[in-house]
Amino acid sequence: MLVGKVVGSVVATRKNENLVGNKFMIIEPMESMADKKRIVAIDNVGAGIGEIVLVAEGSAARIGCGMVNCPIDAAIVGIVDDSIGLE
Amino acid sequence: MLVGKVVGSVVATRKNENLVGNKFMIIEPMESMADKKRIVAIDNVGAGIGEIVLVAEGSAARIGCGMVNCPIDAAIVGIVDDSIGLE
Amino acid sequence: MLVGKVVGSVVATRKNENLVGNKFMIIEPMESMADKKRIVAIDNVGAGIGEIVLVAEGSAARIGCGMVNCPIDAAIVGIVDDSIGLE
Amino acid sequence: MLVGKVVGSVVATRKNENLVGNKFMIIEPMESMADKKRIVAIDNVGAGIGEIVLVAEGSAARIGCGMVNCPIDAAIVGIVDDSIGLE
Amino acid sequence: MLVGKVVGSVVATRKNENLVGNKFMIIEPMESMADKKRIVAIDNVGAGIGEIVLVAEGSAARIGCGMVNCPIDAAIVGIVDDSIGLE
Repeated sequence: MLVGKVVGSVVATRKNENLVGNKFMIIEPMESMADKKRIVAIDNVGAGIGEIVLVAEGSAARIGCGMVNCPIDAAIVGIVDDSIGLE
Repeated sequence: MLVGKVVGSVVATRKNENLVGNKFMIIEPMESMADKKRIVAIDNVGAGIGEIVLVAEGSAARIGCGMVNCPIDAAIVGIVDDSIGLE
Repeated sequence: MLVGKVVGSVVATRKNENLVGNKFMIIEPMESMADKKRIVAIDNVGAGIGEIVLVAEGSAARIGCGMVNCPIDAAIVGIVDDSIGLE
Repeated sequence: MLVGKVVGSVVATRKNENLVGNKFMIIEPMESMADKKRIVAIDNVGAGIGEIVLVAEGSAARIGCGMVNCPIDAAIVGIVDDSIGLE
Repeated sequence: MLVGKVVGSVVATRKNENLVGNKFMIIEPMESMADKKRIVAIDNVGAGIGEIVLVAEGSAARIGCGMVNCPIDAAIVGIVDDSIGLE
């Protein structure tokens, strides 16, 4: 998993029907974790812009969030409220 | 997922039989997301060249687009019509 | 798999219900393995901060640790006590 | 998926029994797609050295090529005969 | 898949029980394939230090080596004894 900040969101009116009802948030990984730039993740926990979140990627996002048949490869799965060694 | 621009397409007459009927689009990730260069994704939503799209990768592309037995590892799953924080 | 050092941890009070009870450790890959920066992994073996650990990523973390339905994409699966060629 | 050129091949007499009968080709991704260097892919379509091919990675290679139980993470799934925007 | 050289090994006395009995080898990818640094892979074919090997990653390692429920994301699946275009 990675930790990042919610910095925006994306709207797609025309999309795969299995995606309807999801929110697509843009995540900027923490600098200590940034081998990748921003990614788009669905929001599984009610995160808002500016919050620091935990993101799962790959089949874990799809299966772990009960969306087995959805074309989702990343999901916000927690809101970080404390940490050691994140910076 | 990542957001990118459709910049081209690829034609492969000789291909795996499970790929027949698909369109292979070339996607250039947005600069804020560009830790990878261009990728090829099948088109699940009717996207055209020049459009900004949402792309799912990995098993999510295959399973989420109802193509469980196809050798597909990336799919366009939405057309982006609005966003915050994409640049 | 990769080998890294446990350098911290993350607390997320609000999270996906399938994650409850897990510890989220921050791993810094050994320099010889560092094409990626720090990652977050659940702890499957009782590792502490400062220990050198073996980390599995992807579906291996989820399925290999008996957490098939959890949104987990990385897990500490061993504590390294000897090695050749790690540096 | 990615597009690349077949630049070589690998022979492994001693190998996992599920790999017997496969050809292992070395693929150099097109420069516009090159965030990764060369990879090894099995050949699912009869590609030869010098040809430009479409490669699927991950579980898509294994499942999409009918080799569910084989340790294969990349496969040539098409031979590219035309393209827009590849360079 | 990638081709690399076995350059070492890792011992983890305390580990996930599904990993017991495996050897963890450190692989350095060939320079032409080195977008990633060293990785750790289990040994499925009896490879020794110094040998040039073929490595499968992701679910292919786990499923293709008959270790479906093990937290393994990379496996040595062949020993390379000849090649064209590897350098």
